[in-house]
Amino acid sequence: MTLTPLLPVPTETGRVWIKAESLQLGGAFKLRGAYNRLAQMNAEERRAGVVAFSSGNHAQGVARAAAMLDTAATIVMPADAPAVKMAATRALGAEIVTYDRHTESREAIAASLAVERGAVLVPSFDDVDVIEGQGTAGLEIAEQLGRAPRRVIVPCGGGGLAAGIALALPNSAIVTAEPEGWDDMARSLAGGKIVEVAADAPFTSCDALQSRRVSDLTFGALREAGAHGLWVSEAETQAAMRFAFGLGLVVEPGGAVALAAWLAGKVADSEGDTVIVCSGSNVDPRAFARVMEAA
Amino acid sequence: MTLTPLLPVPTETGRVWIKAESLQLGGAFKLRGAYNRLAQMNAEERRAGVVAFSSGNHAQGVARAAAMLDTAATIVMPADAPAVKMAATRALGAEIVTYDRHTESREAIAASLAVERGAVLVPSFDDVDVIEGQGTAGLEIAEQLGRAPRRVIVPCGGGGLAAGIALALPNSAIVTAEPEGWDDMARSLAGGKIVEVAADAPFTSCDALQSRRVSDLTFGALREAGAHGLWVSEAETQAAMRFAFGLGLVVEPGGAVALAAWLAGKVADSEGDTVIVCSGSNVDPRAFARVMEAA
Repeated sequence: MTLTPLLPVPTETGRVWIKAESLQLGGAFKLRGAYNRLAQMNAEERRAGVVAFSSGNHAQGVARAAAMLDTAATIVMPADAPAVKMAATRALGAEIVTYDRHTESREAIAASLAVERGAVLVPSFDDVDVIEGQGTAGLEIAEQLGRAPRRVIVPCGGGGLAAGIALALPNSAIVTAEPEGWDDMARSLAGGKIVEVAADAPFTSCDALQSRRVSDLTFGALREAGAHGLWVSEAETQAAMRFAFGLGLVVEPGGAVALAAWLAGKVADSEGDTVIVCSGSNVDPRAFARVMEAA
Repeated sequence: MTLTPLLPVPTETGRVWIKAESLQLGGAFKLRGAYNRLAQMNAEERRAGVVAFSSGNHAQGVARAAAMLDTAATIVMPADAPAVKMAATRALGAEIVTYDRHTESREAIAASLAVERGAVLVPSFDDVDVIEGQGTAGLEIAEQLGRAPRRVIVPCGGGGLAAGIALALPNSAIVTAEPEGWDDMARSLAGGKIVEVAADAPFTSCDALQSRRVSDLTFGALREAGAHGLWVSEAETQAAMRFAFGLGLVVEPGGAVALAAWLAGKVADSEGDTVIVCSGSNVDPRAFARVMEAA
């Protein structure tokens, strides 16, 4: 695990920072949760290994945690996952099992692999240990800032990172950011109960945030914390990627949505300290180049 | 000033780190030296302001230090300096005076401005306070690592950063990295006296490292430290930029030459800790995109 930097964003107030989880080992915060979950396994469980399903960043987090803790990892990934994420997962020694995202159920494949091998299934967000592991990013923020910030803006897929940070920073306002049409956490928080992403949700480049339903655990923690949610457009996400580039950071689309919400002025209150989490950097170089060229 | 992160590079030994000066305020280490020089000025000098000449990163460093210390900055820049660097310098409140790099002398222009205005001329590397300021990067490396590393590989233009780090880390081996044909520090160290860059030196994308002559101060400090120098090709530099991208870092060509030297296996000895300085991130997005697309 790496202590990721808290980088000042040049502003007039001087009270805005980026928590660069994009610089975490494996290029995303996911190692935090995966490591914390795997560290709870006993010797017998470690011999049997772990199974996870993921479009990418969780895959790498579990694969790296497994390598660090000397256990075997099998990762179920969609056949059309970004090549860079698949290659990195394989390089960490994990076995990859692919599936067709339109016709097959990754949950069913992972569950049957887990039963077959006696392996532990590591969920990407619906797990107390995973959520608590992601929360270490929040503990670091308070330590690096010397105080709890007024608010933290967090990219949200299943909500594990946002829920973990909410638990770690009970006195900070938590704002979740999601891609347009994929703002199920925002709508769930607004309506007081979980709503799923619509079947006809629009295209999003934020592959890391394409979870169709948050969980009772993540939703419950964020509702309890009084969090609220925002969404951003593709154009706002790309503008955030270019802004981050100007600060020296590579940020993948899904990792840039919290920065996008802040840049777009969607976070109305601006008193006190604002910490923006940039949660991942795993993007194909050519896709990144296209966003830079659109400047 | 920001404490820049020391990021682990995934390797078998686990003893290689990147000191990401590319994440320094202004996108390069230059603020360190400029701030340290300007902080020595008395009240009368601060009223008159400062003058500097630079192709970019030093310009921004001086402009930002001047803003922080509430003094006026005039920067002499080549008319063909990267647009991103000019815009950033202007945004910091500095006045920019351009010159034609093929027909005019920036030294003469800056000197005459300094005399005219009674302002202090801030050299980009040939100054004890500037060198000592850059050296704070070396002090941070030892603090972050918990010990002095076996070796530090440093991008080298005029040699201010390398000399500062050499003074800060007297027990570490210092390796300078330069672009092909611009390896005047390497040849000066090898020959025991300063040699200039040849008049017909080849094209280099490393605009930040195009100084034609090192100085007695920087050369002297590095010779005293037993430093030696290496050069890298354009292709090696671009490969390093792509490697840094995979770690989530935007690094400009000149900032990537130390990483390039390490990746190319040019640093023969690999025992103990290796720290690679990535010294800047100020590159036009389209130029960066072209390097990514060449992957």
